[in-house]
Amino acid sequence: MSNTPVTSAQPSPKIDTRLWSTKARNLSPYVPGEQPKHDHLCKLNTNENPYPPSPKVGQAVEAILTNGADALRLYPDPESDGLREALANLHHEHGIDASNVFVGNGSDEVLALVFACFFMKERPLLAPDISYSFYPVYAETFGVHMVKIPLSDDFSIDSDAYRQPCCGIIIANPNAPTGLLLGLDAIRKLASEHPNAVVVIDEAYIDFATDSDESKQGNSPSAVALVKEFDNLVVTQTFSKSRSLAGLRVGMAFADASLIEALTRMKNSFNSYPLDRLAQAGAMASVQDEAYFAKVCQQVITLRETLASELAKLGFEVLPSQANFVFAKVPTTLLDGDAEAVALALREQGIIVRHFAKPRIDEYLRISVGTSEQLKRLIEALKVLV
Amino acid sequence: MSNTPVTSAQPSPKIDTRLWSTKARNLSPYVPGEQPKHDHLCKLNTNENPYPPSPKVGQAVEAILTNGADALRLYPDPESDGLREALANLHHEHGIDASNVFVGNGSDEVLALVFACFFMKERPLLAPDISYSFYPVYAETFGVHMVKIPLSDDFSIDSDAYRQPCCGIIIANPNAPTGLLLGLDAIRKLASEHPNAVVVIDEAYIDFATDSDESKQGNSPSAVALVKEFDNLVVTQTFSKSRSLAGLRVGMAFADASLIEALTRMKNSFNSYPLDRLAQAGAMASVQDEAYFAKVCQQVITLRETLASELAKLGFEVLPSQANFVFAKVPTTLLDGDAEAVALALREQGIIVRHFAKPRIDEYLRISVGTSEQLKRLIEALKVLV
Repeated sequence: MSNTPVTSAQPSPKIDTRLWSTKARNLSPYVPGEQPKHDHLCKLNTNENPYPPSPKVGQAVEAILTNGADALRLYPDPESDGLREALANLHHEHGIDASNVFVGNGSDEVLALVFACFFMKERPLLAPDISYSFYPVYAETFGVHMVKIPLSDDFSIDSDAYRQPCCGIIIANPNAPTGLLLGLDAIRKLASEHPNAVVVIDEAYIDFATDSDESKQGNSPSAVALVKEFDNLVVTQTFSKSRSLAGLRVGMAFADASLIEALTRMKNSFNSYPLDRLAQAGAMASVQDEAYFAKVCQQVITLRETLASELAKLGFEVLPSQANFVFAKVPTTLLDGDAEAVALALREQGIIVRHFAKPRIDEYLRISVGTSEQLKRLIEALKVLV
Repeated sequence: MSNTPVTSAQPSPKIDTRLWSTKARNLSPYVPGEQPKHDHLCKLNTNENPYPPSPKVGQAVEAILTNGADALRLYPDPESDGLREALANLHHEHGIDASNVFVGNGSDEVLALVFACFFMKERPLLAPDISYSFYPVYAETFGVHMVKIPLSDDFSIDSDAYRQPCCGIIIANPNAPTGLLLGLDAIRKLASEHPNAVVVIDEAYIDFATDSDESKQGNSPSAVALVKEFDNLVVTQTFSKSRSLAGLRVGMAFADASLIEALTRMKNSFNSYPLDRLAQAGAMASVQDEAYFAKVCQQVITLRETLASELAKLGFEVLPSQANFVFAKVPTTLLDGDAEAVALALREQGIIVRHFAKPRIDEYLRISVGTSEQLKRLIEALKVLV
């Protein structure tokens, strides 16, 4: 959910594409974000969690390595039943059981299967014009006609703008890179206004969001609560952000059992065993450590608010983020408001943030929430530039 | 490479497919083989290795878990550069470098991407009529027209029968479930006779094969040796069999850099990070322990020969296997030669083997090479049935 978009990546003339399919020739693949191989960089560019995963994750993986890792010689459970049960239990209050849960190799794989199952249709798919840059890549991969619906001037999603014929809608919530949250009422409206379309809410960052309705404080704004209400709603989530497990590649979808069945059939027509034994065990252990999870999310939320207020003090216009990053407009006092120049100048000081050279957002920087030490280092570096 | 084919799996009438794409509705997915969840069964049905992986695999995974698994919070290397380098080094003598290596989430994922990149074309794909049952599933998933070329009466592959217009050829070598090996001369002929088609040799079981040409004894019969000779040759392999890592999900392809580029682009249009950090580290450690690998392969080969001769003593007609399983025709002295009945009777004794209810091979059983204890248990159980 965090990486570099590629505007066009036609094969360079040097590459011999003689034996490629037309499909392969016409791809404009997603290029994964920079993962520097040395450690001293202050890495605030791909929205990873600054805290480690639950200690129970390591213990669960270690347990498999007893007996000389003998268990690894056997195939894993292809349907990850234990993990799906554990995820269902998390949402028991909303009537979710394992038949409502699908898991995959990161939410990216889950999203790819969602496109194949629900959006390969004649009518178009609707998505915000500014959102996760893998969506248009999937659309091309699966021959899906995607229509981009502009965000409002304040970058919020205008759910009325989606009232048009479509096979589906996909919205990242909180959206990326803006960090803005769409409320459950708007999602309920989208799902009920499009009974014959599949509405996908991509909740990669939802665990860092808090409900804005004070009467519901403490409740999650996740649309998983609506899954039993709407048979056309798919909610995707990931272990990469709030569970500090980007390195383990686990994502999931919650939906009506008939939609989960489609995803399962598509998976088994492509790759039957996407989750290895270590990933299944580690992910299960993470789910079972609710206290650690709640603590880390709260720590990130607290640091996000500190980061937002420190940036505001420096003159940044900071969007009200509900994610583990902030999206902020560079003030003119800082290198004449040239966001790209600021990103480059920070890089020279060993700090990586994300700049998007795209219309409407090219004056902004997306900055992941790091540790408090990283936050201090960032703010000091920015002060040097003023 | 080892599991249950499904002849047809149309959605049952109970499932609401209203919101599914036509693609999803028309799938006949592969159904992964039985993975019983209790341990006391003698599991000889999915060609897993009876020996554990190299001890270095567990050590490499453990090393990541130091510091409380903190490394797992970061995304893995999307292109698995370290693992690809290690695999290239294994085949340095054949001029292979990392640009000739692709890795994926099991060879199943690699094969899926191969179908999308090289077989989505107007001309048909050619494959043996009796082979890995995922091939026709991929063909349906990607809309590939697959023409089945009958095996000879002795189940061998007649390479002359492939001399017809096609976009590609895919052959499992050794073939499954027969275990028979096609020699490098025949593969060279296929690749040179079809310069405008992609020839895929799926070598899931190649590490258990020994060259039949005595002058080359000790050499591997792997077609990786031909990759630098033919720009239209793709050789796929897996860590699931010879490296005892079915539970870790790692597979690879060796080919000309232009074909590897197509696979990489297709991967990055579908799922950028298919190999998690633990899988990359474990697989690299396995590759680096060449002595252990050679020892385990030799042990399996020795046990395979013992299994074949014990079965022959009981009257089975055993095909000359070059894999980690044997394919054997049940003698009439054993439940009137009813292979399915023998499989069921063995199951009642806690031993699982594979029977295929398919034309030409329904009188055969496919039996994985187990430990010497499992071998004894199988032979005792068969003697009871005589």
